Amino acid sequence: MPNGGWLDGCLNVFAGVEILRRINSQYNGKPPITIHLVDWADEEGARFGKSLFGSSACSGNLDMNEARGLVDKQGIKLPDALKNVGIDFERVKDSGKELKNAAAYLELHIEQGPVLLDLDLPLGAVLGTFGVERHAITFHGQAAHSGSTPMNRRKDAFLAAAKMSSEIYKIAERSGNGVCTIGSCTTKPGIVTSVIEECRITLDQRHLDSARLSTMLSEAKSASEKFAREGNVKVSWERLWQIAPRPFNDELISLCDEAIRETCGKSHRLPSGPLHDAAEAAAAGIPTVMMFVQSLHGISHNKIEDTKKEHLELCVTAFDKLAEKAMKWISSK
Amino acid sequence: MPNGGWLDGCLNVFAGVEILRRINSQYNGKPPITIHLVDWADEEGARFGKSLFGSSACSGNLDMNEARGLVDKQGIKLPDALKNVGIDFERVKDSGKELKNAAAYLELHIEQGPVLLDLDLPLGAVLGTFGVERHAITFHGQAAHSGSTPMNRRKDAFLAAAKMSSEIYKIAERSGNGVCTIGSCTTKPGIVTSVIEECRITLDQRHLDSARLSTMLSEAKSASEKFAREGNVKVSWERLWQIAPRPFNDELISLCDEAIRETCGKSHRLPSGPLHDAAEAAAAGIPTVMMFVQSLHGISHNKIEDTKKEHLELCVTAFDKLAEKAMKWISSK
Repeated sequence: MPNGGWLDGCLNVFAGVEILRRINSQYNGKPPITIHLVDWADEEGARFGKSLFGSSACSGNLDMNEARGLVDKQGIKLPDALKNVGIDFERVKDSGKELKNAAAYLELHIEQGPVLLDLDLPLGAVLGTFGVERHAITFHGQAAHSGSTPMNRRKDAFLAAAKMSSEIYKIAERSGNGVCTIGSCTTKPGIVTSVIEECRITLDQRHLDSARLSTMLSEAKSASEKFAREGNVKVSWERLWQIAPRPFNDELISLCDEAIRETCGKSHRLPSGPLHDAAEAAAAGIPTVMMFVQSLHGISHNKIEDTKKEHLELCVTAFDKLAEKAMKWISSK
Repeated sequence: MPNGGWLDGCLNVFAGVEILRRINSQYNGKPPITIHLVDWADEEGARFGKSLFGSSACSGNLDMNEARGLVDKQGIKLPDALKNVGIDFERVKDSGKELKNAAAYLELHIEQGPVLLDLDLPLGAVLGTFGVERHAITFHGQAAHSGSTPMNRRKDAFLAAAKMSSEIYKIAERSGNGVCTIGSCTTKPGIVTSVIEECRITLDQRHLDSARLSTMLSEAKSASEKFAREGNVKVSWERLWQIAPRPFNDELISLCDEAIRETCGKSHRLPSGPLHDAAEAAAAGIPTVMMFVQSLHGISHNKIEDTKKEHLELCVTAFDKLAEKAMKWISSK
């Protein structure tokens, strides 16, 4: 993550290393099950615009044709960038064999949001990663002179688009725990003396439940059509991206809760809004869970990203307990 | 006007020439009062971004310091462009002596809007040009991850800005005949995965009545502050431009009405949303009126700008009658 913080990614790997040390020492190098620590390649997708590169290659979900054509800002192709560090792009999916027979996947991460902060809790058990529907919505009206066009004669693309803003808050509320975000708005001709002819907004919708995510999307579509009719403008939708929700394993979620309660008394279950490599592990059919630790300010991807030192200690302790519980759970099956 | 139509500007000058011919012929070169035809320089401001250049120089309202520094897209300064056609920029206000003792100013123009078209009337008497208040309004919220930030934790600059869109329609309606336009919207960071931190919209408000224009502005300010409070964001305003309403002369408006009724049976009084050189004549204290002829499609500043041939004939006839009536009105004073 360019200009990112010090915990997103690093915390997870270093905590994993410490837990491997503890297990190695406790079991004299012979733990009851084989344990791997994974340092996934390019979760963020900052260079090539493709999130979860390593984990989707490993899970088999990576679209090879799409990835083959990806270029960075300097025009360097992803396969060439990989070649420079000794990796053959055409064989990245071979990594999938490492996941064969994997009995569980555990991941620790900073929350990157304000939920645990608001609840004043250090740790939480993650229910899964949100499914995402991402669209561009364009309203098409008519440019007209701001001085000579009476209000009732206007085909104002911005008026229709703007109505979506309040509406998505209602849609998210009706959905239960979903979120909806209008992330950008562009206007044409975009000059002070003209009614807006074309207004394009982006809409990002997320939910842990696939049916509810669909409902959020269809409600947004209906609303956009209603607002377009009201304003005598047209509306068109373009899908930018989508991913299905990845619910985590119920038994592992319970073990995660237990580990947290044993460490700091109280746990909380929450979905993950951001994507994580764990989503690809879950998609590959591996029983998966994540543990979140509180983020100060509820902020990430930023130099001010931080977590209290005592919470860092708690999360490593709790994650270590979870690792032990998961090993026992696997062994007992 | 780059890529403009064939009537905006030309109609006025050619009609004036024909009327001068008629007067010259009727009075054998000795009309009861002296008549000038003015072909104003750069009404549109298309090259240097400064509307009403010639007429504001003539009225004395031109800001010489501001105009001296204006440059076109090629970096050529306004004074240099004038020098190339033999005009000394520093003396442009000397043209004001031509307006000394002017007894009336008449201007014919296409409406450039849809009002006469909607009323199915060829001609209208113009009440004056709208005053304009033009501002940039910026809402300042906080960027936050679209997936990890619960809806009730957001400081969404777009939500507050978007609420202005419906509100300005209510403000315009309450004002009587005013108009309000949001012409552009820009968002930062403006990416699909972030709540919008900063949203800037432009607001153009116009009214013929100065007090009502003030009210429209203060209502918009109050609304923006209310929406900012509701959304836990901040708002700031920056004035881009303003001009006072320029009401035309009541007696000349009546004469204009008369001339229209005598020509085509029915007249209509309407304000002018767009600015015209007549606004500067009125500002210079000269009794002023304009006549509008219907615009097809209600559109101007565009190749499809057009007016029915029979309406063009009616407007020249009616404007000629108005010229005659104005001469008699002046002579009788």
